[in-house]
This record gives sequence, structure tokens and C-alpha cells, in this order.
Amino acid sequence: MKDSIFPERTDRNAIEKGDVLRPKFDEHGLIPCITVDAASRDVLMFAFMNAEALDLTLKSGKATYFSRSRGKLWIKGEESGLVQKVKEVYVDCDQDVVMIEVEVAGTGCCHQGFRSCFYRRVSDRENRKLAFTQERVFDPKAVYKKT
Amino acid sequence: MKDSIFPERTDRNAIEKGDVLRPKFDEHGLIPCITVDAASRDVLMFAFMNAEALDLTLKSGKATYFSRSRGKLWIKGEESGLVQKVKEVYVDCDQDVVMIEVEVAGTGCCHQGFRSCFYRRVSDRENRKLAFTQERVFDPKAVYKKT
Repeated sequence: MKDSIFPERTDRNAIEKGDVLRPKFDEHGLIPCITVDAASRDVLMFAFMNAEALDLTLKSGKATYFSRSRGKLWIKGEESGLVQKVKEVYVDCDQDVVMIEVEVAGTGCCHQGFRSCFYRRVSDRENRKLAFTQERVFDPKAVYKKT
Repeated sequence: MKDSIFPERTDRNAIEKGDVLRPKFDEHGLIPCITVDAASRDVLMFAFMNAEALDLTLKSGKATYFSRSRGKLWIKGEESGLVQKVKEVYVDCDQDVVMIEVEVAGTGCCHQGFRSCFYRRVSDRENRKLAFTQERVFDPKAVYKKT
């Protein structure tokens, strides 16, 4: 999907070996974003950005996503105070995925009260059982009005 | 999208607070997967899995994805030898994203010859310029027949 904010995607060489950001947005105008804790290197969350969200993330230094459920821009922490300060922005080989390293204001990222959304691991692969790997670090009810 | 391999997604509590793997596949039958180096904690790549790929990843311990471009299962390393041995499988709060920690056989993951697909960072946010953060660790031409 073409947008007017970022330059056109030209040939494969320019995209994979070049030094200009030429992100690819899918048929819904979105690009996946992996968010990593700059200090611990833990993967904190996964969300989508549209061109405007990526543009704002680059300009403001605050992680900004596009909420598919609400159908609008989502400045992370706007409601909860758990703002993500962007330290680095990476792009993958074919520039259809973004990865950001952030500093988290406050204790966590996940609406369930955990530091990271990935708080469960498959502990028994045969029976598909999960085990919790983190303790809750905040009370979601106190932070999110609607949870 | 319902599949017959994994249990039904019931209520939100069971999904977000439960101990049973109940992955959500999108309208194309796919779930995003973030692949992390178990040793260095670097994000190596991002790809999709269908239910069969996730099932095989759990059973075989070898990272298996679904290639959207080729429209088929993709056992990572089958062609290149760069197999990924799965150490841990994580799922996010609403179980619509998977994260795996892997041990990489060989030098890298990326078809461009880098250890990770995220080999460029945005070095100039205003002018959207990228800088390389990794050196090539293998020759893609020698590893991938078709590159």
C-alpha cells in the first residue's frame, strides 16, 4: 500500500541493501512492530503501526501504534502513563517489520499488569500447558480505567 | 479462525489468565511469530505460522513457519542448513502472537547473510536514513541456491 509520508519502495536492492527507510505497509496500511526493552532486551509487546504512527514515533520519540480494535492512533501510555521512550528504531531486511527499543516509564507494558505481554511460556509441549514466567508488577484496575 | 489442532478460544479470562495454549489465527489462518536468539537475546527475525507450523514447531523442536510468498510450510534451515532449535515458546496476553527463543545452527538467519534480519537502525530520524549495525556473517549466494 502506498502512502505519502514515506518514500516509494523501488527495487529490491534499494530496499534490502539501501540506507533509506522505505517501509512496507500491508493491504490495511499497517506494519508490524516488535517492542523491546532497551535495558533488559526483553520483548515487551507486539502491535501495528500505520504510516502516521511510524512517522509520529520517529518525530516525537514516543512509541505510537495504531489500535486495530479502536481504529485509531494509540500513543502508548496516554491513558495509563506507561509511556515508551524510543531509544532506537530498526527495520528488517525487506522493510516490512519494525523493531523499536524503548525505555518504559513506570513498571510495565501489558494491560494485564505484567512488565511484558509475553508472561507465559509453553511448559508442556505435548499437552500445550502454559506456565507463568513473570509476577504482576502493577494493578491493571488502578492503571486502566476500563479494565 | 477456528482450527482443529488447538483447543477452542473460550472466554477472555481463560485466554489471558489461563494455563492452556489457545492461539488465535487470523483470517488467513496465521499467527505472527517473533524469533529471538536464546543466547544473545537479539531479535533475529519475524515470520508467520499457521496451526500446522506451530504444531510442528512444538512437536519437532525445529522452528517451522508458513511462507506466505510460497504458500507452504517452511522448516527453517531446510534449504540453507541454518536450522533453529527451539528452546522456549512464549505466547502473549491475548494469545495472538508467539515468541520463540532459538539456538541457531550456523552463523545466521537472514537471507541477506546477516545474523539477524534487523541489521539496520534509523540513524537519522528526520531524514529517515538507515545505518548498518551488523557485518555480514555468511555469503548468501553460497548458502541459498536461488539468491
